[in-house]
Amino acid sequence: MTLEGVEALCFDVFGTVVDWRSSVTRQAEALLAPHGVSLDWDAFARAWRVRYQPAMEAVRSGRRPFVKLDQLHRENLEAVLAEFGIEGLLEPALAELNLAWHRLDPWPDVGPGLARLKRHHILAPLSNGNVRLLVDLARHAGLPWDVILGAEVAQAYKPAPEAYLRAAEFLDLPPAACMMVAAHNDDLAAARVLGFRTAFVPRPLEHGPGSRRDLEPTADWDLIVPDFGELAARLGC
Amino acid sequence: MTLEGVEALCFDVFGTVVDWRSSVTRQAEALLAPHGVSLDWDAFARAWRVRYQPAMEAVRSGRRPFVKLDQLHRENLEAVLAEFGIEGLLEPALAELNLAWHRLDPWPDVGPGLARLKRHHILAPLSNGNVRLLVDLARHAGLPWDVILGAEVAQAYKPAPEAYLRAAEFLDLPPAACMMVAAHNDDLAAARVLGFRTAFVPRPLEHGPGSRRDLEPTADWDLIVPDFGELAARLGC
Repeated sequence: MTLEGVEALCFDVFGTVVDWRSSVTRQAEALLAPHGVSLDWDAFARAWRVRYQPAMEAVRSGRRPFVKLDQLHRENLEAVLAEFGIEGLLEPALAELNLAWHRLDPWPDVGPGLARLKRHHILAPLSNGNVRLLVDLARHAGLPWDVILGAEVAQAYKPAPEAYLRAAEFLDLPPAACMMVAAHNDDLAAARVLGFRTAFVPRPLEHGPGSRRDLEPTADWDLIVPDFGELAARLGC
Repeated sequence: MTLEGVEALCFDVFGTVVDWRSSVTRQAEALLAPHGVSLDWDAFARAWRVRYQPAMEAVRSGRRPFVKLDQLHRENLEAVLAEFGIEGLLEPALAELNLAWHRLDPWPDVGPGLARLKRHHILAPLSNGNVRLLVDLARHAGLPWDVILGAEVAQAYKPAPEAYLRAAEFLDLPPAACMMVAAHNDDLAAARVLGFRTAFVPRPLEHGPGSRRDLEPTADWDLIVPDFGELAARLGC
């Protein structure tokens, strides 16, 4: 099957579609500064995110049952606040801050790119975000998804195979008719071994200017493109 | 909780959002007439649909495991072709005809109504259609869903409680913040008993001009409106 056989595009979201770091940085400052908190907001956002993979690993390994990412984000928030020595925040503020992950801004090429891609392809997030988070994010950022797929509907966190395979099953497509689009080599590797097509879109600023993670493709992905506009062009949209 | 607390609108689809009867009638004729088939196409569409509830009942009762509606439609298609004495249709034609349910036209008030409702509410089908069917239908009919919910993600056919409750869970909402919108009193009754808000939108032509099913509300639903435009108006959109 060639790239012309790709019917659905499945997108990693955090980092690939939206710039979580600057969005969480900005919202944390806006919500916590009025409480008298002062700190390195970018470091706070990154420290919150660092706890993301270990929290999901507890689910992937079977040490705890599946819970929504909102709950993991909340547990991680309380831990990172303690890490930064911030005490005494009360419930409405904590809940509101946790919703920062529902209001992340897209990279600038995303809106025009998805509009072009939507004409001839089914578009779906294949994210570890829970359904409501992804619904809110789509409404906030104007993401024209056809369907919300990913961890919660599969009850499994990427890179568990079930997360990808359940998405293809919901779409009634063989994996080779689905293309995983991600800024992360490990996400693409997990999808490829199951038969998905793969597109790498590096987002060098995801973790900040000094980061060296995922700057380059580590395999011969089906497509390697700088942004969603070029992805649309390469797919003939 | 008043109607102002309604955050999500969950829609029955077949009959409420789309006019399955005229759409299936037209497509059946367009696909089968070139094969030399001649019959009462409207009767054929209705006969196909009559087998819908009994087929799902086999799943609801536990006599067979959950299967997608596409598969039930296909089994019903083969039965109704035999009922009408049509023989010898081969595979590409059968598969194509079964996809008629993915290409149903909306009632005329649906597009403008959903556009208004979308501004302040999460919109989701809560349908017995499978995910891919609902994705194709949304693309065909221009339905701006935020998320696809219903039987396949819940692995339960309405009016099983799980179908409604899983939808509310995916949306992270209590049932009272969800409003079921349907042209069918039994669908609303099943939703109400679980705490959903209810809106009745009669579609008197669903089953044809002579039908007497669901012409009137059988209970004091929260809203009783003639179309989606009035639904938007009553919800302050």
